[in-house]
Amino acid sequence: MLSQPLSPEPPLLGRLQTLCRGAELPGLAARLGELADLVAADLVAVERGLPRTRPEASAVERSAGHLLSLGGKRLRPMCVALAARLGTGFDARAAELAVAAELIHAATLLHDDVVDLGESRRGAPTSRLLFGNAVSIFAGDWLLVDALRRVRNAGVEGLLERLFDVLDQMILAESLQLERRGRLDTTAAQWMAIAEGKTAALFRWAMYAGARSGGVDPGTAEVLERFGADLGVAFQATDDVLDLAGDPQRTGKALFTDLREGKLTYPLILSLERDPALAPLVADIVSAEVPDAAACLDALRRIEATGSLEDARRLAHRHAGRAKAALLALPPSAAREALETVADATVHRPV
Amino acid sequence: MLSQPLSPEPPLLGRLQTLCRGAELPGLAARLGELADLVAADLVAVERGLPRTRPEASAVERSAGHLLSLGGKRLRPMCVALAARLGTGFDARAAELAVAAELIHAATLLHDDVVDLGESRRGAPTSRLLFGNAVSIFAGDWLLVDALRRVRNAGVEGLLERLFDVLDQMILAESLQLERRGRLDTTAAQWMAIAEGKTAALFRWAMYAGARSGGVDPGTAEVLERFGADLGVAFQATDDVLDLAGDPQRTGKALFTDLREGKLTYPLILSLERDPALAPLVADIVSAEVPDAAACLDALRRIEATGSLEDARRLAHRHAGRAKAALLALPPSAAREALETVADATVHRPV
Repeated sequence: MLSQPLSPEPPLLGRLQTLCRGAELPGLAARLGELADLVAADLVAVERGLPRTRPEASAVERSAGHLLSLGGKRLRPMCVALAARLGTGFDARAAELAVAAELIHAATLLHDDVVDLGESRRGAPTSRLLFGNAVSIFAGDWLLVDALRRVRNAGVEGLLERLFDVLDQMILAESLQLERRGRLDTTAAQWMAIAEGKTAALFRWAMYAGARSGGVDPGTAEVLERFGADLGVAFQATDDVLDLAGDPQRTGKALFTDLREGKLTYPLILSLERDPALAPLVADIVSAEVPDAAACLDALRRIEATGSLEDARRLAHRHAGRAKAALLALPPSAAREALETVADATVHRPV
Repeated sequence: MLSQPLSPEPPLLGRLQTLCRGAELPGLAARLGELADLVAADLVAVERGLPRTRPEASAVERSAGHLLSLGGKRLRPMCVALAARLGTGFDARAAELAVAAELIHAATLLHDDVVDLGESRRGAPTSRLLFGNAVSIFAGDWLLVDALRRVRNAGVEGLLERLFDVLDQMILAESLQLERRGRLDTTAAQWMAIAEGKTAALFRWAMYAGARSGGVDPGTAEVLERFGADLGVAFQATDDVLDLAGDPQRTGKALFTDLREGKLTYPLILSLERDPALAPLVADIVSAEVPDAAACLDALRRIEATGSLEDARRLAHRHAGRAKAALLALPPSAAREALETVADATVHRPV
């Protein structure tokens, strides 16, 4: 068995620390260092627990292995690990659940890239470009089954049933997103329903799963679920801001990528409500074979003028704040502090 | 909730009976009548247990509902029902497992139709044509999750783990089939590996699940698994013969459909081994935008001349015979006779 390269440090933390050191958030940089110290060994265990790609593996396994080998933020496993550390700690069972959370996420990325005809992911060609759409569909199925098997084997009561419900919510949110594809009249409420189902539901499960595997009582685990739900919305709102205001050098993503895939981001939805004259400009960017750079810049200026980017950032901060507030029900601990750091870092991340 | 139309009688049985009455198998027609009497109520319960499509349902639910509403042979639920009847009988728990088997099958059809760009299924446009490829991918995911939830809720020890393994086998067989796509040097052994994984594995699980839910002891349930495995290979070999020698009016499928999707059928693999001069003819049919009717007829004549269609039928009959032989370990019963009838009908079916 060939093992995949292990990241020397959790990629999100490393990149975020670099940014924070040189920027306006020296406090956060130090706290990220503490977070890294706390979960470094846990995340190495997660990397080791991911399915390995054997040299003679099938196309489906190699397609899944390609995506997993590219790293990623491993934010969902980090949630499982920290929630477990609020209880008896991060053990082999929690590691299985952390791996399962990452595999579910990876399965959705494989299917999403087929659906969106995505060409680049984590700075590399997508699995579907390397192995074909068909193989990527089955690779997603394969990771989903692997994740469910791990959750079943972990044997923590109630987790498998909750994951089935979370998967339903994720799939129905994908369905809603497809139905709203390219529709400039998408509302903020619809955006929130999609964000809650597609993104927040799995964060919620990761927190609950970690907590219960660490023996945290069900009531406290539900408090942590609320943390996960708010963290997820904060994460998605930040993602949406980065699609319009991120540095393409850093995010590895061209501006308006979401829009070109027919996804209406939160700041764009707000902008269209506030400046109806923006609609034809945006429609042109969606429909153009190659979007015109000047038209993009013009649209971006108008979007900024509506104040919607600032409001989207505010939404992200509000949900990060709510996530942290939920934690106040817990006694102070290193893991609790680390979760506060995760919430802050999520809305300050550059990628 | 709108209920879907219930078939007045199991479609496979109805169609098969019509055929057998007018043909050379009067004995089978009578036995199919007895089989229909035995499982009619069970199959009505399965139809009732399928997920309903609400009028306000999401695109994903409507896409899945479209496929399920078209009927189909319901052969996997029938296996669950008859295996349960070998024990304490077909109850609500067995019905859930029977529905789960059908949902797994439907999920694979939804993903297969996206992969193969299928346009027609069960005499109607495919879900992907009506709702789009993206929706059909998520609809398959949704049915898979629903099936697993039902198996988990049925609470019969060992069934969920076995289903995870069966799903792995199905996905890896799909992967192998994709890797062999359009490869005229595919071997009979590779065909068998694909048939065992893609088709037989789920029949095997259906038999085991039904038996265990009916309280049949694990040893006997494993005998029934062997029945399912052989039935599945017999079913696939018959399917492959029908792709070349079926009546397109009856099967609703143009000749050489499998080949045009890059799938090498068993008789074609045998023919290519026996008549190497056939390869360029077959390659032309695969690559042509619209296959030439005269070329197809010519290829078909050469395939027939190799005796491979007869040998493929013989393979199907051999496996049906083995399936029936496995049943001899069981005491005689109406359910055992009905399973013998299923094996005979599978290799004599016109569709």
